Amino acid sequence: MNLGFACIKTLSTLQNHSVPAASRTTVSADENRDFMAVFPDIVRDLKEITDKYNPAEISSWFERSLKYNIPHGKLNRGLLTVLTYKNLVPAKELTPENVKLAQILGWCVEILHAFFLVNDDVMDNSSTRRGQTCWHKMPDVGLIALNDALMMENALYALLKKYFRTADCYVDLMELFHEITYITACGQCLDLLNANNDVLSFSMEKYNATVANKTAYYTFYLPFALAMHLAGIKDQEAFRQSKTILLEMGHFFQVQDDFLDCFGNPEITGKIGTDIQDNKCSWLAVVCMQRASDEQKQIMRDCYGRNDAEKAEIVKELYKSLGLPNTYAIYEEESYNMIKTHIQQTSRGVPHCIFLQILNKIYQRDS
Amino acid sequence: MNLGFACIKTLSTLQNHSVPAASRTTVSADENRDFMAVFPDIVRDLKEITDKYNPAEISSWFERSLKYNIPHGKLNRGLLTVLTYKNLVPAKELTPENVKLAQILGWCVEILHAFFLVNDDVMDNSSTRRGQTCWHKMPDVGLIALNDALMMENALYALLKKYFRTADCYVDLMELFHEITYITACGQCLDLLNANNDVLSFSMEKYNATVANKTAYYTFYLPFALAMHLAGIKDQEAFRQSKTILLEMGHFFQVQDDFLDCFGNPEITGKIGTDIQDNKCSWLAVVCMQRASDEQKQIMRDCYGRNDAEKAEIVKELYKSLGLPNTYAIYEEESYNMIKTHIQQTSRGVPHCIFLQILNKIYQRDS
Repeated sequence: MNLGFACIKTLSTLQNHSVPAASRTTVSADENRDFMAVFPDIVRDLKEITDKYNPAEISSWFERSLKYNIPHGKLNRGLLTVLTYKNLVPAKELTPENVKLAQILGWCVEILHAFFLVNDDVMDNSSTRRGQTCWHKMPDVGLIALNDALMMENALYALLKKYFRTADCYVDLMELFHEITYITACGQCLDLLNANNDVLSFSMEKYNATVANKTAYYTFYLPFALAMHLAGIKDQEAFRQSKTILLEMGHFFQVQDDFLDCFGNPEITGKIGTDIQDNKCSWLAVVCMQRASDEQKQIMRDCYGRNDAEKAEIVKELYKSLGLPNTYAIYEEESYNMIKTHIQQTSRGVPHCIFLQILNKIYQRDS
Repeated sequence: MNLGFACIKTLSTLQNHSVPAASRTTVSADENRDFMAVFPDIVRDLKEITDKYNPAEISSWFERSLKYNIPHGKLNRGLLTVLTYKNLVPAKELTPENVKLAQILGWCVEILHAFFLVNDDVMDNSSTRRGQTCWHKMPDVGLIALNDALMMENALYALLKKYFRTADCYVDLMELFHEITYITACGQCLDLLNANNDVLSFSMEKYNATVANKTAYYTFYLPFALAMHLAGIKDQEAFRQSKTILLEMGHFFQVQDDFLDCFGNPEITGKIGTDIQDNKCSWLAVVCMQRASDEQKQIMRDCYGRNDAEKAEIVKELYKSLGLPNTYAIYEEESYNMIKTHIQQTSRGVPHCIFLQILNKIYQRDS
């Protein structure tokens, strides 16, 4: 039995929740189109900045790398930035200029995301991403990809300088990007060190630390906090309370990602999962080890982290025989309820409806 | 004939210049020791910052990476930062606190340098650096090295925040690091794209653009400009004039590096040169192509950029038969005189003696 997209939907207990249909698609097609419409400006800005120092061949190369690596994802992080900003400021402040600034910040997050993905794909030796060949696997690119990633990371700060240098929040924006990039790199480090360890050493504690750092900060907290800074929010307690909720959402998001890596449909996720072969300390592997008999542990020891499709299939079958898809569905429901409660307990600064919109959006995804 | 260290000294026409012996060692042993004494503080600061978010294993791993990759070079860039600062401010401002700040900035430059080296060594598939195995070639490291480099790059901003957040120059310091990192990545991109091209396409124009971006900005301009910011200099024209001279020095420094890659003594340079095998658009290759007969061009075409020690030796012999070591010695003298003239023509802000000290320091190096 192959657990594809349809099956996840069936497993999900959340279908029974009374999530209003309208709020499921928190980002309208218009919003998406408006956001995409800014990307050519971003590319033009970065080409201009690059041309200042360099022969034209560099900006052409960089343009190709930007167009290949940045806009082909779901753009969740960028759209979350814009959405949050629009919900935070009063209607009269939603001028085209201010919305454009939020969109620029959204693209900065997408640039940072692309930077991480290009780097990660090299480190994990991945071959596909977002339904296309990984950048470093393109025949004329190779390890130049690492330098292209570095160019993206630092181009982001050139955009901040161009658009925000006179803004009140300029230093906050720079510091936030620095801090989140550092935290994410720490998470990536944990993830890589875990993957060098024996599957028997995997623990939920390690998993939780890795996930918070590797994913939750830059996927949920960063876009939200950028929008808060742009909206002029200064209350540190509002940032702290938002962070707590957003990191919980990020944690769930990564568990989902781990589930989809194994049981998702590559045609929908856009990538072929390799967590089992890569010896990743994934949510599935951790729960499996918590439940496995000595015999099953031996199967994991023999088959986990091997570059062998048959062994990976044995692990997948073990996951199924331990009922992990069902455990995942239960976890999904409990996690949803817990975060909803935390949102209701939040007192400071940020309207609950924004968090609920994000929550409902991520608890429906299949890619 | 192997042109080692002694031979370079012989080739160098600069021995005849009346460079006062005292100014040749612009950085005293004391200065070096004082600078090194700050490194443990840097490591402690970065461990503390890392521990805030992470399980202790991450800060231990990072500590090992910092200690392995940062302090084993010549520390020229860090020392140049301190030296420049000490020359720029009046004696009464040289308090221990201010000198410590200059040293911290110096270590930030060394961290950035280490970040580039770890990345470059992966991209170039190098095996030794500073007389030790490259970080990514250590058996338990591998491609985690790339993430370690990323941690270094962003840890630098955590140091800036810790020590300079309330300083007048904080934004200037961050912007300078962003800009120079971006320029350097552009230079690295040019370098890598050049190396994919046929040796027949190498030109001095491409070489000059690559060198300015890849090396000169972060090796010479960055340390100097950081010291200027810390010293409170605001005059943009002083920055511009200094940049012109420092980029010229950086250019010479890279030509020297290219020469040493081929003709230097690995025991002194600390690395085994691979420019010929890597098809690098080096100064030697460019001058060689300018002078080569059709027959010699064919030799270059057959032997350059091949992973073959015998072919590399043939290229080296061709360089010698075209008299490149002598051309280099002439270039060294002319370049020295030109930069000296430019220093004397500089009118703004920065005392000539600082530039002359740096000039005399780099025109003596053999590693």
